[in-house]
Amino acid sequence: MSLIYENENIKIETEASEIPWLKIFTQVAYKEMSEVPKEIKLEIYHLLDIIEREMLLYYKPTKINIASFGNYLPHVHWHIMARFEEDAYYPEPMWGEKKRKSTLSLPSFKNFCTNLIGNINGK
Amino acid sequence: MSLIYENENIKIETEASEIPWLKIFTQVAYKEMSEVPKEIKLEIYHLLDIIEREMLLYYKPTKINIASFGNYLPHVHWHIMARFEEDAYYPEPMWGEKKRKSTLSLPSFKNFCTNLIGNINGK
Repeated sequence: MSLIYENENIKIETEASEIPWLKIFTQVAYKEMSEVPKEIKLEIYHLLDIIEREMLLYYKPTKINIASFGNYLPHVHWHIMARFEEDAYYPEPMWGEKKRKSTLSLPSFKNFCTNLIGNINGK
Repeated sequence: MSLIYENENIKIETEASEIPWLKIFTQVAYKEMSEVPKEIKLEIYHLLDIIEREMLLYYKPTKINIASFGNYLPHVHWHIMARFEEDAYYPEPMWGEKKRKSTLSLPSFKNFCTNLIGNINGK
């Protein structure tokens, strides 16, 4: 995984995967979302919205998946993933049972991240 | 599953499970969260917050899990679950690999739902 964006409240990292997958972490290690200050909660939801729109536009995925578990790592973080009928787990969640060998061929994730950061920075 | 609360924007249903598990659906069948009108988005996030706080207070779970997939049913809905070290899948998500036979013994889910609805209605 690697860091693609951060500010004083949150950071965005990529998850190494066959699918486009980002994670938003709070900078302070809150355990549960209800402990996060309201302004940072709203910032996370706003970023999920921006990322989702960008994923829909750029990848035209079958579905967007969003999740916040933190069972292994009790530090609030959100997963957002673009899912495709051809990906290895669809229609199961990425934590579910593998269904097939993936035959995905997707446009550049690097370019996606560059566009996204431009979008977040309001360019 | 059964309906425990609804208004003009959303409805809350229970999921039959060994763990406390609720689902929030939009009344209108939007496919993706970014299509949902802003006021209804904020209402969903507010309800997730209320449910999480009530779960933490009532069940003292190990962790709260939240997810929105919709791969099988492309109608925006959010899962919120109280997770416990003793539940059958912990620390995997509820969609992951089963780890053990559950030995959970929890207080009444019916009473939890009654308290929650009172809370949502501002009693």
